[in-house]
Amino acid sequence: MNLPQHVRLVEVGPRDGLQNEKQPISVADKVRLTDDLSAAGLSYIEVGSFVSPKWVPQMAGSAEVFAGIQYKPGVVYGALTPNLKGFEAAVEAGVKEVAVFAAASEAFSQRNINCSIAESLERFIPVMEAAKSHGITVRGYVSCVLGCPYEGEVAPEQVAAVARELLAMGCYEVSLGDTIGTGTAGKTRTLFEVVGRDIPRDKLAGHFHDTYGQALANIYASLLEGIAVFDSSVAGLGGCPYAKGATGNVATEDVLYLLNGLGIATGIDMDKLIAAGQRICEVLGKPNGSRVARARQA
Amino acid sequence: MNLPQHVRLVEVGPRDGLQNEKQPISVADKVRLTDDLSAAGLSYIEVGSFVSPKWVPQMAGSAEVFAGIQYKPGVVYGALTPNLKGFEAAVEAGVKEVAVFAAASEAFSQRNINCSIAESLERFIPVMEAAKSHGITVRGYVSCVLGCPYEGEVAPEQVAAVARELLAMGCYEVSLGDTIGTGTAGKTRTLFEVVGRDIPRDKLAGHFHDTYGQALANIYASLLEGIAVFDSSVAGLGGCPYAKGATGNVATEDVLYLLNGLGIATGIDMDKLIAAGQRICEVLGKPNGSRVARARQA
Repeated sequence: MNLPQHVRLVEVGPRDGLQNEKQPISVADKVRLTDDLSAAGLSYIEVGSFVSPKWVPQMAGSAEVFAGIQYKPGVVYGALTPNLKGFEAAVEAGVKEVAVFAAASEAFSQRNINCSIAESLERFIPVMEAAKSHGITVRGYVSCVLGCPYEGEVAPEQVAAVARELLAMGCYEVSLGDTIGTGTAGKTRTLFEVVGRDIPRDKLAGHFHDTYGQALANIYASLLEGIAVFDSSVAGLGGCPYAKGATGNVATEDVLYLLNGLGIATGIDMDKLIAAGQRICEVLGKPNGSRVARARQA
Repeated sequence: MNLPQHVRLVEVGPRDGLQNEKQPISVADKVRLTDDLSAAGLSYIEVGSFVSPKWVPQMAGSAEVFAGIQYKPGVVYGALTPNLKGFEAAVEAGVKEVAVFAAASEAFSQRNINCSIAESLERFIPVMEAAKSHGITVRGYVSCVLGCPYEGEVAPEQVAAVARELLAMGCYEVSLGDTIGTGTAGKTRTLFEVVGRDIPRDKLAGHFHDTYGQALANIYASLLEGIAVFDSSVAGLGGCPYAKGATGNVATEDVLYLLNGLGIATGIDMDKLIAAGQRICEVLGKPNGSRVARARQA
């Protein structure tokens, strides 16, 4: 049981988080959040998404956000680009790293993006080719890795197959997402055991939702499997403990508390991180979703 | 990494939980909660505390609660008895199992119960003797095992020393409590490694608070160390996520979700457990502190 000595946290609050908040947020507040996060020591921030504002109104203005942030050397500022149109808009906005996503569940793929898993992967081919020619790095997401709202159980072998495809297409890393938060520590361990059979673990990341309170136990189980990259959302943005249909992103502060306790280096300053989360919660007028942040305020 | 096949959950909601709620609760509601919990399959319920109502007004009427519950065969109904006076009152109320408590931190012992650890243990001698002569079993608690609000770090060796004393005095099991919730998975592992050197692990239990969101990760770390008894509180009673000074008992539902996912038997029915928690939350007029319960309602 050797734990990694260093963990990279991929901060998804400005994108995955804010996308799921009802309250509209100004470009200035998104820029401020991103800058606060880089100042806190986050080395990867998913800033926005280049999708039709018709589908995801919260992500309108991602180009303006990318234009407004203070770029800090060594920090990766990522954007979600579901198709070539989005990719081209991202390039125009100066984005240097993008992310694509597929589901591990056929039913979820059909209902969420109206096509099969295979079709969704095919649609990324032009994005991957364009990225290569622009020297832009691509990260992959796989959703529903520990359960699907329509299919229920999802086989780890199916997750492994989709992850392999994304890596073969050119993604440098694949983040495995427990989209509905129903995964538990034992299944997490099995997932990485199976997926890790033919994918090096340093190409895998974990993306856990705290909907059922299991995220930190799952992250600990992942660490014990040698996983050293985790997605998280400052202040638990995107999931309100008392809101219906909350996605329940695990709070970056709570993950950092676990990692600090384990003596694992991250380069992140807890106080600055909590301040960044608290500020955006005040903008949103919602309670802070991080237990650590709430305990510190108590 | 062999996980236990069966775990016993010690439900502390009616005592440790309600004791820390501001809202007064009627004897009838305490009785109903206890009966709901036994019906849900909990095999150990800490029902009340025989202490001066001057100090803990929420525990007034514990004798009436013990008189009102429907005793279910095979279920242990426990009471906290800090001294001989309390013990005698518990015996009079028909209590068959009691619990005593000591701190692993000198500063906490002094501030919380106004005496040294050694003095607190000495005070239990007459309780232990009386329990023996009445054939009453005694469970021990050690608090501040992963940190003290006054001293900070607490050495696992100090925890081991206090636990050994309690076992030597006649306790059949000692529950190690992370009273302020600052423990993380690595420290939890070290704690049980050290304490487990000269105490059999089947005489140890874990009592985790979710103040910093770490409880389930700590429980998973404990399971990996062979610990198979955990204290928890239905609906997270005793800790409100948005209240100052919340004690933050981990919610029984959330622990059960973890254990169910690991395929570990408990004998507890999740739906009945959630219903029991939801009912008492409605009585208290507070949001449910269990993430699983909230996710199920969403």
